Amino acid sequence: MRVGLLTGGGDCPGLNAVIRAAVRKGVRDYGYAFVGFRDGWRGLLDDHRTTALDIAAVRGILPRGGTILGSSRTNPLAEGEEGVCLIEATLARHGVEALVVIGGEDTLGVAARLSGEYGIPCVGVPKTIDNDLSATDYTFGFDTAVSIATEAIDRLHTTAESHMRVLVVEVMGRHSGWIALHAGLAGGANVILVPERRFDVDEVCGWITSRFRSSYAPIVVVAEGAMPRDGDLVLKDGTLDSFGHVRLSGVGEWLAAEIERRTGKEARTTVLGHVQRGGTPSAFDRWLATRFGLHAVDAVRDGDFGTMVALRGTDIVRVPIGEATARLKTVPPEMYAEAEVFFG
Amino acid sequence: MRVGLLTGGGDCPGLNAVIRAAVRKGVRDYGYAFVGFRDGWRGLLDDHRTTALDIAAVRGILPRGGTILGSSRTNPLAEGEEGVCLIEATLARHGVEALVVIGGEDTLGVAARLSGEYGIPCVGVPKTIDNDLSATDYTFGFDTAVSIATEAIDRLHTTAESHMRVLVVEVMGRHSGWIALHAGLAGGANVILVPERRFDVDEVCGWITSRFRSSYAPIVVVAEGAMPRDGDLVLKDGTLDSFGHVRLSGVGEWLAAEIERRTGKEARTTVLGHVQRGGTPSAFDRWLATRFGLHAVDAVRDGDFGTMVALRGTDIVRVPIGEATARLKTVPPEMYAEAEVFFG
Amino acid sequence: MRVGLLTGGGDCPGLNAVIRAAVRKGVRDYGYAFVGFRDGWRGLLDDHRTTALDIAAVRGILPRGGTILGSSRTNPLAEGEEGVCLIEATLARHGVEALVVIGGEDTLGVAARLSGEYGIPCVGVPKTIDNDLSATDYTFGFDTAVSIATEAIDRLHTTAESHMRVLVVEVMGRHSGWIALHAGLAGGANVILVPERRFDVDEVCGWITSRFRSSYAPIVVVAEGAMPRDGDLVLKDGTLDSFGHVRLSGVGEWLAAEIERRTGKEARTTVLGHVQRGGTPSAFDRWLATRFGLHAVDAVRDGDFGTMVALRGTDIVRVPIGEATARLKTVPPEMYAEAEVFFG
Amino acid sequence: MRVGLLTGGGDCPGLNAVIRAAVRKGVRDYGYAFVGFRDGWRGLLDDHRTTALDIAAVRGILPRGGTILGSSRTNPLAEGEEGVCLIEATLARHGVEALVVIGGEDTLGVAARLSGEYGIPCVGVPKTIDNDLSATDYTFGFDTAVSIATEAIDRLHTTAESHMRVLVVEVMGRHSGWIALHAGLAGGANVILVPERRFDVDEVCGWITSRFRSSYAPIVVVAEGAMPRDGDLVLKDGTLDSFGHVRLSGVGEWLAAEIERRTGKEARTTVLGHVQRGGTPSAFDRWLATRFGLHAVDAVRDGDFGTMVALRGTDIVRVPIGEATARLKTVPPEMYAEAEVFFG
Repeated sequence: MRVGLLTGGGDCPGLNAVIRAAVRKGVRDYGYAFVGFRDGWRGLLDDHRTTALDIAAVRGILPRGGTILGSSRTNPLAEGEEGVCLIEATLARHGVEALVVIGGEDTLGVAARLSGEYGIPCVGVPKTIDNDLSATDYTFGFDTAVSIATEAIDRLHTTAESHMRVLVVEVMGRHSGWIALHAGLAGGANVILVPERRFDVDEVCGWITSRFRSSYAPIVVVAEGAMPRDGDLVLKDGTLDSFGHVRLSGVGEWLAAEIERRTGKEARTTVLGHVQRGGTPSAFDRWLATRFGLHAVDAVRDGDFGTMVALRGTDIVRVPIGEATARLKTVPPEMYAEAEVFFG
Repeated sequence: MRVGLLTGGGDCPGLNAVIRAAVRKGVRDYGYAFVGFRDGWRGLLDDHRTTALDIAAVRGILPRGGTILGSSRTNPLAEGEEGVCLIEATLARHGVEALVVIGGEDTLGVAARLSGEYGIPCVGVPKTIDNDLSATDYTFGFDTAVSIATEAIDRLHTTAESHMRVLVVEVMGRHSGWIALHAGLAGGANVILVPERRFDVDEVCGWITSRFRSSYAPIVVVAEGAMPRDGDLVLKDGTLDSFGHVRLSGVGEWLAAEIERRTGKEARTTVLGHVQRGGTPSAFDRWLATRFGLHAVDAVRDGDFGTMVALRGTDIVRVPIGEATARLKTVPPEMYAEAEVFFG
Repeated sequence: MRVGLLTGGGDCPGLNAVIRAAVRKGVRDYGYAFVGFRDGWRGLLDDHRTTALDIAAVRGILPRGGTILGSSRTNPLAEGEEGVCLIEATLARHGVEALVVIGGEDTLGVAARLSGEYGIPCVGVPKTIDNDLSATDYTFGFDTAVSIATEAIDRLHTTAESHMRVLVVEVMGRHSGWIALHAGLAGGANVILVPERRFDVDEVCGWITSRFRSSYAPIVVVAEGAMPRDGDLVLKDGTLDSFGHVRLSGVGEWLAAEIERRTGKEARTTVLGHVQRGGTPSAFDRWLATRFGLHAVDAVRDGDFGTMVALRGTDIVRVPIGEATARLKTVPPEMYAEAEVFFG
Repeated sequence: MRVGLLTGGGDCPGLNAVIRAAVRKGVRDYGYAFVGFRDGWRGLLDDHRTTALDIAAVRGILPRGGTILGSSRTNPLAEGEEGVCLIEATLARHGVEALVVIGGEDTLGVAARLSGEYGIPCVGVPKTIDNDLSATDYTFGFDTAVSIATEAIDRLHTTAESHMRVLVVEVMGRHSGWIALHAGLAGGANVILVPERRFDVDEVCGWITSRFRSSYAPIVVVAEGAMPRDGDLVLKDGTLDSFGHVRLSGVGEWLAAEIERRTGKEARTTVLGHVQRGGTPSAFDRWLATRFGLHAVDAVRDGDFGTMVALRGTDIVRVPIGEATARLKTVPPEMYAEAEVFFG
């Protein structure tokens, strides 16, 4: 049996670990051959380049960030059914009878439809830095991102203390606050702001003032998608620079400026950006990605298509792909509320 | 209400995070006062020194390893009921009406009996580097230990490759192989040996030889409590040194010597030792320990004594303390079997 | 003898290591008593708060970033000779007969004048993240900053590769490119831009295009003070946001926009910011700061005032403070030229 | 012109950085072609396998530990002049007109003789974890080893404190104490023992007792080659285990046992071992190794054979290879004496 593999969406530490585990398990235990399609769904549309994946090809990639298969955000269903035909043709050309699809909401959403509506045999592996996929306790990449953000917060504490400044740290999370919440709790932040709940700038300033009163300097962790209660000010913040480029300042810089204006305290912003999603995966993410890869191949062997591997407690289970992509997993209010005891 | 806190057993990254979270939650939300007893149960027996724990006292301790309360392995029930009387007297003297007990199997075993048999109001918080406590998905400290061991394995790969040597890494785990299994998977080990399953040295040598055949050098991860199939040779290995001290060589060194003898390949051992349990906790462990602390105080508020906080998926739940200490949580055979695809 | 200590300017990993070493050496070997003045020169002007520094007071601070004495950018000579009188009065009030001044160009510039013109007995210890102080091979804090920036670049490589994007990393260095040069070399950057040499955007785009041709994605490391050849465009880039705040986009964001416009390739920016100057010092910086502290106290004992400790090779020597502050140490053209072989 | 490259001796982080820089500089600036000989001098004796090194071949190796060329401890002069003939023949066969030799005392000692006595055109690049090569301020690999050891010591502090135990850390350094001294200073050790000075166990126990008196637990850093004053007891410590293997306990374990016996305090040992020499190089080592590679190629271009590149302050200079290998660079007594203020 020939099994196809692809990685789609934003890159994420652990992608290579999934590929390695799947190939190793498939080759050694079931005698499968593996074909890697390049650059996500685009590789299946264009059939421009494939990589034969045997055990030698996946040696040494476990600790490496990124993906040896490349990625893209191409949506093959954007143009309608034509994409489906191209994909079917590519699979047929390579004699591929099953497809392991590693990706986030968008990539898996395609897999759900290809599997459900067109009978293309897909098994999903959930991947997102942001941890906002339903049906799984965690996605790989998230722990790495949280670890990097936490280490940055650790470092910023000392600079905040030495100068008695407010330090605002903007972390990833356009639609969900998981990284902000976990890194904020782990890093001992004094304010944590998430997209799930609009924040009140005066309340934030209150926490900041309270923190200074106990002779400590505050750290504010804000998800890039967090928004103030009183309007979508941040999004209006586009301005033209001297070259005529539109320039959007992020919520982090906006908030620091507001804090300075309202409290009179110096505030500085750090935007961690892509550093959060690159580099070697954490031990947890390597372990999770490896197990996902092993179990995805077992799903292929069982012909259990249309399913996605997922973490539940310490078990890897299978769930319908659609269950994971139906709705975003956001931070529940009661979990956010737990963190509030550390504010101020 | 006055609440007592103690930390018992081996030190573990995250202990301070529990203390901080419990104090902060208790003081801010419920108006509790906290008394820290020093050096585990010994502090309650001797009443030699206590620490008043208010919010200022727990500032800045989140990222610090070890425990600000000190620890010991003293078992207050070793001498019979006398210990119970001393504990009751100490609690009364300090006006303590509830006790948050942070510890592993032994420390919590005492809490279970004090609570169940003598009505002393205890809430447990599970702690062990080894992750071998039942009733919780994970204990804090484990992720840190796995991360440190994985980083060491990463480093050893390059030295193994450069010299085409076998590198044996002995990690913690006297009775369970959780650290070995997780770090072995995450570090890309070629052999993983755990206490749960006696190993066959010839089989190990077979994996090693197979690895060399593909022109790579093997890494063997062995839990300190792993034993060869053909007898408990390792434990007999005590010898006298020139000073007449008994000297026990660990399984790692023993195995490296055996591998050299049987395969003719050079083998070296690294014993990670206490490095695995010291220093700043990982982001995951800080998050878990913090949530344990918060929920332990909620259990106190609910008068839910005799229970222990535990992680189930992403939820913190309460279980009877006795459930956690009744039997060791070992690596299930099917989980170990998952890893075998990477051997050789 | 009573010796005063102060730390001035921006915070920097290793300040506490200097304090600890100086106190330990002075107390144990020479029987000195130490007084810590708070918040740089401001503490000497206001005499608002001092800290008695004995051996117990400096225990455990070696690995901690920031400074236990606080810092400020107050220039006591800004208002003329009045500041000198206040400083002399404060020193007399505390019976301080020698002052160890730990700081950068500004702080040490004051020490040079106080020592040279007013006979106040100062010994200097050079500190700057930026490494731009003359007369010493390195300042502590620099190695930590370079290490943090290098680790970030390592992580960005994988995300650049996975998406075939340009990644621009803006690092510290307003007036000198030491951090950019060292981190760029260590991180394998494909373009390194420094304040010492105005850059040509088209040349930068040429290197980027050449890198893509060999199927790799480029990393551009740019010091915050680097400027394009064709005018000071960046500095004009202030715009008003929706709140009427002036907003200066840094050179990193400006350059990424230019690269996108000229090459048609996606480009992203990461601004590392304060993360580079916080947190625990690297081993090298702890060693250097510790030795600086020891030797500063020896200079006090020798009555060698007006001097600063400096690193020359592996030796700690003494130089006139003025020698260090007379001119900025910038990256020599031939050292920058060495790096060019890696461009493109 | 064809230039040969080889790496000899123990592996060391930074070897690949040298190779990459040399190749890149030679190809781009001088049009050289490079041949990599495998496994140190053995590759030149056997001519068993060579690697063509162009720019593509050295992409991505900068952050990787180990050496892509492999290494060995083969001494081609061990058997007399026959080795020289084999080497000359191999060089002729590959048309190699200059040889860049990257290695430590032994490997460079051979290069010195080949160059001086037989006219084989060698340029040396100094490499040793131990930093014990004369004529250069530092060798690459050393900073990485010190950083790893320091991080381990940081972690051990918390476990020492929590249990009030002595922790003995054995670090690399058979003949010199550089790693012990630097990591001991950077890690805040309470005792540092080096091969350059025999230690007195009772004095060590005195420092330990003094440390406990101030309510802190001591960390003892000992180089593997350190020896007690009263005889070479450690080396006699060979014993037979139950399999009849001779087992030498290192100085770390021996010392911990002695400390326990004499002070009555619990003591534990950590032997860091190969972890110190593997994995990605530190930023400093990457910078140093890169510059060594660039300058070695310049020496080739200048025909400056028989020389070795060396670090002096911030300059890379050339020295006769023999100067570096003539005598071991050990820790000077006055530098060791600097550290004593931290003992106890």
